[in-house]
Amino acid sequence: MMKKLTSKIKATNAPIVVGLDPMMKFIPAHITEKAFAEYGETLKGAGEAIWQYNKGIIDAIYDLVPAVKPQIAMYEQFGIEGLIAYQKTLDYCREKDLVIIGDIKRGDIGSTSSAYATGHLGKVTVGSKTYYGFNEDFATVNPYLGTDGVKPFVDVCKEENKGIFVLVKTSNPSSGEFQDRIIDGRPLYEWVGEKVNEWGADCVDESGYSSIGAVVGATYPEMGKVLRKIMPKSYILVPGYGAQGGKGADLVHFFNEDGLGAIVNSSRGIIAAYQSPAYEKFGSLNYADASRQAVIDMREDIAQALAGK
Amino acid sequence: MMKKLTSKIKATNAPIVVGLDPMMKFIPAHITEKAFAEYGETLKGAGEAIWQYNKGIIDAIYDLVPAVKPQIAMYEQFGIEGLIAYQKTLDYCREKDLVIIGDIKRGDIGSTSSAYATGHLGKVTVGSKTYYGFNEDFATVNPYLGTDGVKPFVDVCKEENKGIFVLVKTSNPSSGEFQDRIIDGRPLYEWVGEKVNEWGADCVDESGYSSIGAVVGATYPEMGKVLRKIMPKSYILVPGYGAQGGKGADLVHFFNEDGLGAIVNSSRGIIAAYQSPAYEKFGSLNYADASRQAVIDMREDIAQALAGK
Repeated sequence: MMKKLTSKIKATNAPIVVGLDPMMKFIPAHITEKAFAEYGETLKGAGEAIWQYNKGIIDAIYDLVPAVKPQIAMYEQFGIEGLIAYQKTLDYCREKDLVIIGDIKRGDIGSTSSAYATGHLGKVTVGSKTYYGFNEDFATVNPYLGTDGVKPFVDVCKEENKGIFVLVKTSNPSSGEFQDRIIDGRPLYEWVGEKVNEWGADCVDESGYSSIGAVVGATYPEMGKVLRKIMPKSYILVPGYGAQGGKGADLVHFFNEDGLGAIVNSSRGIIAAYQSPAYEKFGSLNYADASRQAVIDMREDIAQALAGK
Repeated sequence: MMKKLTSKIKATNAPIVVGLDPMMKFIPAHITEKAFAEYGETLKGAGEAIWQYNKGIIDAIYDLVPAVKPQIAMYEQFGIEGLIAYQKTLDYCREKDLVIIGDIKRGDIGSTSSAYATGHLGKVTVGSKTYYGFNEDFATVNPYLGTDGVKPFVDVCKEENKGIFVLVKTSNPSSGEFQDRIIDGRPLYEWVGEKVNEWGADCVDESGYSSIGAVVGATYPEMGKVLRKIMPKSYILVPGYGAQGGKGADLVHFFNEDGLGAIVNSSRGIIAAYQSPAYEKFGSLNYADASRQAVIDMREDIAQALAGK
């Protein structure tokens, strides 16, 4: 899977993942009106609107980027109907050959983490048959429960040629509350980073990268610099660019000398681009074109930052 | 919600929550055969088997216990069909007036945690209407992202009269890897416990308890003793009793002097009781009767331990 991800990043020249985190307030009126006309102002209507909105964006950006990252919470809030929209979105992204990072932030004790890993990355057994559940390519994983909680994901990654990104240093303002606390002279996130490196040591493929990656927020570039060295073989998934305040220049430390090793997420900066002053000229009917332009501009911003490294 | 939970605990004299964590290997053959005859060896067939299995257990135990705790991972591994079984299980438990603790271990940055809180505890807006999603009474929450990640749940708890249990010290063998690391002279789990106490300070109802509780494993009773004092107003959800090794005598430290303050989970020890030597005499056809007896025995085990406190 790392071979596929790195090949696609090289081919597109875009170490970018588009966060498919739909909120009702982002969806253009013509889409919600049509969905509500068909299904009413119901959970099913919301699911249909989300799916149609996503489809428009995917059609507009799939040739420009290697990967998408749907945030499952944004679907789960609509219950089963939301999760059906999540599943449709995944299936369509797979059709378009996009690498899918399920932003699920799961993590539990052993047998329970196994069930999450099975449901999102692996195959579940029913009688004499096996089936994929959600079938993402990567999942994000919370490390608070330690090795027991992460190892079942690593095992499924090996079996299925898939990957995970473990939360190390998150992009939010209060991430330091626990993650930055000093333990034996080093912050907790460094200890988690050491473990990520260890968990992924035997998951390196011909790309030179391990399928056990890490999440480190663009909002903390100096910490990213240190973590880059602690986990040299791990891909870093970098949220926090754009709407959360991270800038192109902040990103250089997350990359290795080979220009690889990081993939930067932008969610609302791309999917709701038409609502921002820079792209409002596209108008809501052409929201997907605005998203396409926002991807092109983000690609340029990152390329310039890396060129100046 | 704490008033409801504590009243039900007093009425049943059972500070017990039954973990509805179905695994295919627990489900008696007569149930899976019937489900597969109807829907084939499919995800839908698995969902039907899980739901029928749960229904039998709920019917057998609902008058004995205050609460159930379905572990969503066990359903999510079957994709949408599994989650439909989860929803059916929740709806049926609500009909039986059981307090529902959704063991979802979610947690993310602000807006995303809001979406999870909305989907599991609150109401989501669709056009001019609002709907409950999964509608549990409590959810378990992962604290790794700090206050930003937990606060949206607290806000929804206040609006909806619901509650959460924040992971403080989990029951699994490797929980100490990060949770026990020493920060300024105290382990991380104590710092998290302090925060739980702080987050829940203004969520105390007439029961005297806060709707912001904590998860502390029965497998770590000495740590439970300390955490009990750090979070005097928080209910402690105690997993790890039974199959994971926690015993009745280990539990006394999790309770307050009023005999309240903790609720002990048992999952496979109850739902798969008929597969253990102590209850195999019931046979698989009477699996639910075995579960009922296991609840009665667990209630006695805890009562004896508390009487000897």
